[in-house]
Amino acid sequence: MSVWRAGRVTSDSDEPLAHDRGLLLGDGLFETVLVTGGEAPLLDRHLARMARSARALRLSGAGPAMDMLVAAAVGDLWRAEGRPARAALRIHLTRGTGRGLTPPDGPSGFLLTFDALPDEAATAPLTAVVVAAPRVDPRDPLAGHKTLSAMARVVARRAAIESGADVAILTTIDGDICEADAANVFAVIGGVVVTPSLDRGVLPGITRARCLEALAAAGRPVAERTLPSLDLARADEAFVTSSLEGVRPLREVDGHPLTAPGPVATWLARCGP
Amino acid sequence: MSVWRAGRVTSDSDEPLAHDRGLLLGDGLFETVLVTGGEAPLLDRHLARMARSARALRLSGAGPAMDMLVAAAVGDLWRAEGRPARAALRIHLTRGTGRGLTPPDGPSGFLLTFDALPDEAATAPLTAVVVAAPRVDPRDPLAGHKTLSAMARVVARRAAIESGADVAILTTIDGDICEADAANVFAVIGGVVVTPSLDRGVLPGITRARCLEALAAAGRPVAERTLPSLDLARADEAFVTSSLEGVRPLREVDGHPLTAPGPVATWLARCGP
Repeated sequence: MSVWRAGRVTSDSDEPLAHDRGLLLGDGLFETVLVTGGEAPLLDRHLARMARSARALRLSGAGPAMDMLVAAAVGDLWRAEGRPARAALRIHLTRGTGRGLTPPDGPSGFLLTFDALPDEAATAPLTAVVVAAPRVDPRDPLAGHKTLSAMARVVARRAAIESGADVAILTTIDGDICEADAANVFAVIGGVVVTPSLDRGVLPGITRARCLEALAAAGRPVAERTLPSLDLARADEAFVTSSLEGVRPLREVDGHPLTAPGPVATWLARCGP
Repeated sequence: MSVWRAGRVTSDSDEPLAHDRGLLLGDGLFETVLVTGGEAPLLDRHLARMARSARALRLSGAGPAMDMLVAAAVGDLWRAEGRPARAALRIHLTRGTGRGLTPPDGPSGFLLTFDALPDEAATAPLTAVVVAAPRVDPRDPLAGHKTLSAMARVVARRAAIESGADVAILTTIDGDICEADAANVFAVIGGVVVTPSLDRGVLPGITRARCLEALAAAGRPVAERTLPSLDLARADEAFVTSSLEGVRPLREVDGHPLTAPGPVATWLARCGP
């Protein structure tokens, strides 16, 4: 294969990533891991999720050998980046190299990137809109996996921003709530903390799971179930959860104001994950 | 940003593609162009399709300046690759660099890859299966565009191969035929050459358009319409079309044998695009 980039023809070895199926076809997985003070305390949970998705989507390469390399690289990357208080480690696992849909026989490859984040996490409540498209098909083999084929989420985010909101919330093709463009969604309805169940094509978020664990351990009623779109805008409170941003209250959904932060989001920020 | 690849931490400038949103998020478009004898006679049509998709998905960078660079690079790449009789030029246009869903302000970037193909094009009839998932949502903002977020197609192809077929055919969420995993689908039904209409989320294939043009110019009845799944397996003949492979007859769909090549595919191979 020959490669042309930035005005010149280069040899393969100068541009190894130009062969990568992550770039050529979005054919891979990623994880975004919060690193604080040079440590990634939830790395094991991220690597376990990636390994589960890799099995489901038949990517090789995930497993103990990769886990050890990633764990060892965190410190090196943190020092190379100037020891930031907070940073985002991104783990990319791709189906090796080569053009064409037919999966290659070669091994998968992985790549790490590391970006410093602002010292203080953002906590301000967000506004959200439920977008008409893209919609998640719970039957889709990629639904519930964090894949590199994420352009639809970029388009959803832009639509949200153009309508004056911060984030987009996606529905399933059946019209119920699935998840936000890059976070899970929770709503408090009649005293019960509700989040869409995983069988709706929802990403099994690590912060999502930790919130459910913390709420259940404290004896608070939680439910993983179908969440109709209309119920979200009429909720007592709502919030989104993600690994980098933790729990972010929603102060408005589709123009309906919500109490933000509400008591559950406040409790989670104090006692939760 | 710091990058780790193949066992070592590298500087940004050593791995420019590690920042690219094509790799990080599948956030871009591609075209695959057939190059014969160092010439790409359909390059203009590919570049025009890419420019239309770029406008729809708000990618900058497509347009006359890029078109001139690509046209000039074809000869350089062909020579670098050893002057193959046939080759595949891949044009990648991505939404620049940077992590995170919110589209960056920076410019888009493009990258070309060039792979020699076997001297003779494959012409053997193919077998196909209609897969249950992924399904195309005609409302999806990415439907009908050739995006780098193509992992679902890789998974579909693998499912087809594991069931003993060569290619997968995808339906829409409404159950009618959309397209093959990397080609458009045609069926001849009662003497009419039918292909799913573009409003079903179908990629506006260049070979698809050229076949329709050739058939219409010869006075043969053609129809772009909804194609129910059942009608495909019961067609008089069927074929798939793509830029690299031209017209490939289907000899079997979901276990139903079809005449291959049928008279329309034979006529297109002789008189068509």
